[in-house]
Amino acid sequence: MAGKDSFKEFKEHSVAEFFKKNRQMLGFSSRVRSLTTAVHEYVSNALDACEEAAILPEVSVQVDRLGDDHYLLRVRDNGPGIPPEIVPKVFGKLLAGTKFHRMIPTRGQQGIGAAGVTMFAQMTTGKPVHVRTSRGDGVIWEMDVMIDVKRNEPIVKNRRSYEGDWRGTEVTAEMKEVTYNRSKYSAYEYVRRTAIANPHAQITLTEPDGKRTVWYRTSFEPVHMAKEGKPHPLGITVDDLITLAHHVTKSRRVSSMLKNELEAFGDRAVKELEKLVGRAVLEKNPADLQWHEAEKIVAALKQMKFRSPSTDVLVSIGAEQIKKSLRANLKPRYVATVTRKPKVYSGGIPFLVEVGVAMDGEVKGFELVRYANRAPLLFEQGACAITQAVQSVDWKRYGISSLEESNTVIFVNVVSTHIPYVSAGKQAIADVPEVVSEIRHALMEAGRRIKEYTSKVSQLKELLAKKRILDHYLPELSTALARILDKNPEEVRAVLSQALEERYRRLRELEEKIGAGAEG
Amino acid sequence: MAGKDSFKEFKEHSVAEFFKKNRQMLGFSSRVRSLTTAVHEYVSNALDACEEAAILPEVSVQVDRLGDDHYLLRVRDNGPGIPPEIVPKVFGKLLAGTKFHRMIPTRGQQGIGAAGVTMFAQMTTGKPVHVRTSRGDGVIWEMDVMIDVKRNEPIVKNRRSYEGDWRGTEVTAEMKEVTYNRSKYSAYEYVRRTAIANPHAQITLTEPDGKRTVWYRTSFEPVHMAKEGKPHPLGITVDDLITLAHHVTKSRRVSSMLKNELEAFGDRAVKELEKLVGRAVLEKNPADLQWHEAEKIVAALKQMKFRSPSTDVLVSIGAEQIKKSLRANLKPRYVATVTRKPKVYSGGIPFLVEVGVAMDGEVKGFELVRYANRAPLLFEQGACAITQAVQSVDWKRYGISSLEESNTVIFVNVVSTHIPYVSAGKQAIADVPEVVSEIRHALMEAGRRIKEYTSKVSQLKELLAKKRILDHYLPELSTALARILDKNPEEVRAVLSQALEERYRRLRELEEKIGAGAEG
Repeated sequence: MAGKDSFKEFKEHSVAEFFKKNRQMLGFSSRVRSLTTAVHEYVSNALDACEEAAILPEVSVQVDRLGDDHYLLRVRDNGPGIPPEIVPKVFGKLLAGTKFHRMIPTRGQQGIGAAGVTMFAQMTTGKPVHVRTSRGDGVIWEMDVMIDVKRNEPIVKNRRSYEGDWRGTEVTAEMKEVTYNRSKYSAYEYVRRTAIANPHAQITLTEPDGKRTVWYRTSFEPVHMAKEGKPHPLGITVDDLITLAHHVTKSRRVSSMLKNELEAFGDRAVKELEKLVGRAVLEKNPADLQWHEAEKIVAALKQMKFRSPSTDVLVSIGAEQIKKSLRANLKPRYVATVTRKPKVYSGGIPFLVEVGVAMDGEVKGFELVRYANRAPLLFEQGACAITQAVQSVDWKRYGISSLEESNTVIFVNVVSTHIPYVSAGKQAIADVPEVVSEIRHALMEAGRRIKEYTSKVSQLKELLAKKRILDHYLPELSTALARILDKNPEEVRAVLSQALEERYRRLRELEEKIGAGAEG
Repeated sequence: MAGKDSFKEFKEHSVAEFFKKNRQMLGFSSRVRSLTTAVHEYVSNALDACEEAAILPEVSVQVDRLGDDHYLLRVRDNGPGIPPEIVPKVFGKLLAGTKFHRMIPTRGQQGIGAAGVTMFAQMTTGKPVHVRTSRGDGVIWEMDVMIDVKRNEPIVKNRRSYEGDWRGTEVTAEMKEVTYNRSKYSAYEYVRRTAIANPHAQITLTEPDGKRTVWYRTSFEPVHMAKEGKPHPLGITVDDLITLAHHVTKSRRVSSMLKNELEAFGDRAVKELEKLVGRAVLEKNPADLQWHEAEKIVAALKQMKFRSPSTDVLVSIGAEQIKKSLRANLKPRYVATVTRKPKVYSGGIPFLVEVGVAMDGEVKGFELVRYANRAPLLFEQGACAITQAVQSVDWKRYGISSLEESNTVIFVNVVSTHIPYVSAGKQAIADVPEVVSEIRHALMEAGRRIKEYTSKVSQLKELLAKKRILDHYLPELSTALARILDKNPEEVRAVLSQALEERYRRLRELEEKIGAGAEG
């Protein structure tokens, strides 16, 4: 569909060329955001690596200013290190990595992030990124990595190794067209929010002015990266089944393939399925499975009952830990937290939603704090399923007449083996109906708990208002009562006053009770 | 940065695998949106093709329902047709195309769209898309196209040709997990909005219930696709210059390269640049140009003066045509339109902003209608630079106390040789500072014109309110006046009434004047 001559211009392009031209899709748009994006990619990778190796993460982020809109970023972790032969592809080739195809809930998941930073660094400064890594085996490797954009292949220079006793990875990237500040879209805010959702990590940020901030860990349990999951029978699509059958499985029969490749699928399930689709299909060689047969199988699976997707796969922060973290970081008066059971969205992908609502106390104004697999989402709030879900809830029902005018922080973490991001910049979750609906339900569950608090608060307000009126009319009231009772007005007044004070005392007790207990 | 064993899992992936797993990034998320996305890709391609060949477009879109969430989409155009040897890559390979690398303001620009639909069709139905095309040379070609996702290469079946007198392209895609309705995110709305911004196109939509709607053309001038532009010296980056020098240019010297590859760069510019960077660099062979030298050149260019980027490259709708179209489609009482001069954003990419504001009359409520190169943007409104710019304007200044409560349609079209989309789904423009600022200025310019209208409206409202009060007090007033003047009250009342009617007539005149003339 183009003009007569335009087909002379028909060309193929590498994915690196695509993202170089569309760098904003990776989050390299404005100056502040570009720097935050680089920090995001490196810090996510560092935390993922530590968790896969069950190491308590220590991550240090250093930002140095080299000139106007010209910065040096260095991120170091105490992770397991990267084998030297893998380093070039990790940092120098897009769509290469360990996470893309595996069913584990990592922060990075695309095999784009770190190589994307390399591309941005080289297109703004012409320089490679510098990588230093060791697996703790006494050998430290260093090298410079760039990307050959036309071919999407790494270029390595200055590769060398030497002896040294250290384990971890350190990446240094020099970038232009970036800037550092402490706005709500800054690297500072990114690290602060990361700390809230990752209490097992110690993170140090050194800012361009030399100021050093350490977020110490408040949890000493290393987060174990879950064992890799299998697709759940209720979530699998026809296309998935065909891909499994034609490209993945080593099983000789469709029946054994289903048992080997799907979760919670045993002999009993095979028998039940046989009744629904017949024996012939299940006896087939997977390589010969046809689309219409796969369609029949998937339709039959939907009629069967299976246990829910395994919770093991999804690493949640946990309601208790969220509460602790929100209390420590925000000092609210009230916190309600909810961790929902895992669900599955289209394509058999398990996910789980956690919500925290912190109100009043030192919380001023309204803020929505979004996370995906415990990585903060700072940008594109308007495009995010989380925002959509928050807006869809009728908060009045839960005693919040206007979120915007209330003092509330809503914390939402979506955990999944594959977060459906709106774009490769990984800052907003797409409006997948199952995900939006589940976030909404989590918020409503939190809402029901909030209601106890908000109704006590409004009850208290009402009582205090009544007391104010009584206080105001106390002199007249005492005089009138004294006349009727034929008593001394001063005496009556003292009695009434005491009764009111007693009532006030009870109100204060109620207030304290709201502050301390009654948590959702 | 991953666990000891996880590197066994290190793999490389094709861009097709990436977008298959992240289909939501291409706009295939919810059921309604997925269908609209497919319509969007095919209709954009059809219009682009017609414009490149200077053909007045006739596009027909047909949606048939085959079952629950199961539809057939057919889009046919009268464009120039596609050479049969190119068809497989257009529909069966991502990142292949004619538009990605060229500086022309097409709707599609990524070489992903049509192949993305093929991928979605095959992953939900297992079926290829069917293509029928002819270049008007008496031969019609038909074939089925799928994608080999692992390799990102096309698979062609049932290829055949026969004689026939027709020119154009017709694509048919069968899809599941989609649905059709007439919501504001529907294919219907997409086509309707396309018609508003493309008055030179005739578009026919046949809905699943058989209802056929034709949007006839109101402009009979074919839109000529602009001649391809060159990068503007003020927008070029160091990386661009290095790429030009090392990979693109055939020039022997840096000086001649600049003259050949950049816009508005002649001998005078070469002489001026020589004074700033010295002769040696300009005499060099482009292949030997170093990063620091390119950096020097780019810094020097910023100090020089050049004529603005050529307007030829950017195909705007034009203020007059927007006004006509908004009047015809929305029947508002007042319309102000603005077409700004071209600007350049980072990377030397020219762009232009057009704005229309339509108020009152049959316009009910507030709506923001966004376009990029005349293709409607229906989704991800919250993430779009256009939305950000609209929200940043202080509309009170222009007599609109609250946009949300006013009856206003804001129409914005961003024209560029490369729209910086947030994601490959092409539904929101990224917050590139230059682009946001330019949209904002266009809106403010429209705002200043609106003010004349809004202040007349409020003046009128005030006068009408005064008249109502006088009407109300007329009997009492007449009696009082009659007593003072010693006249017959009935007589006085008649005179007063006549005076008021006269005044009312003038108000009505003013009202008509507001309706018809005084357009911005």
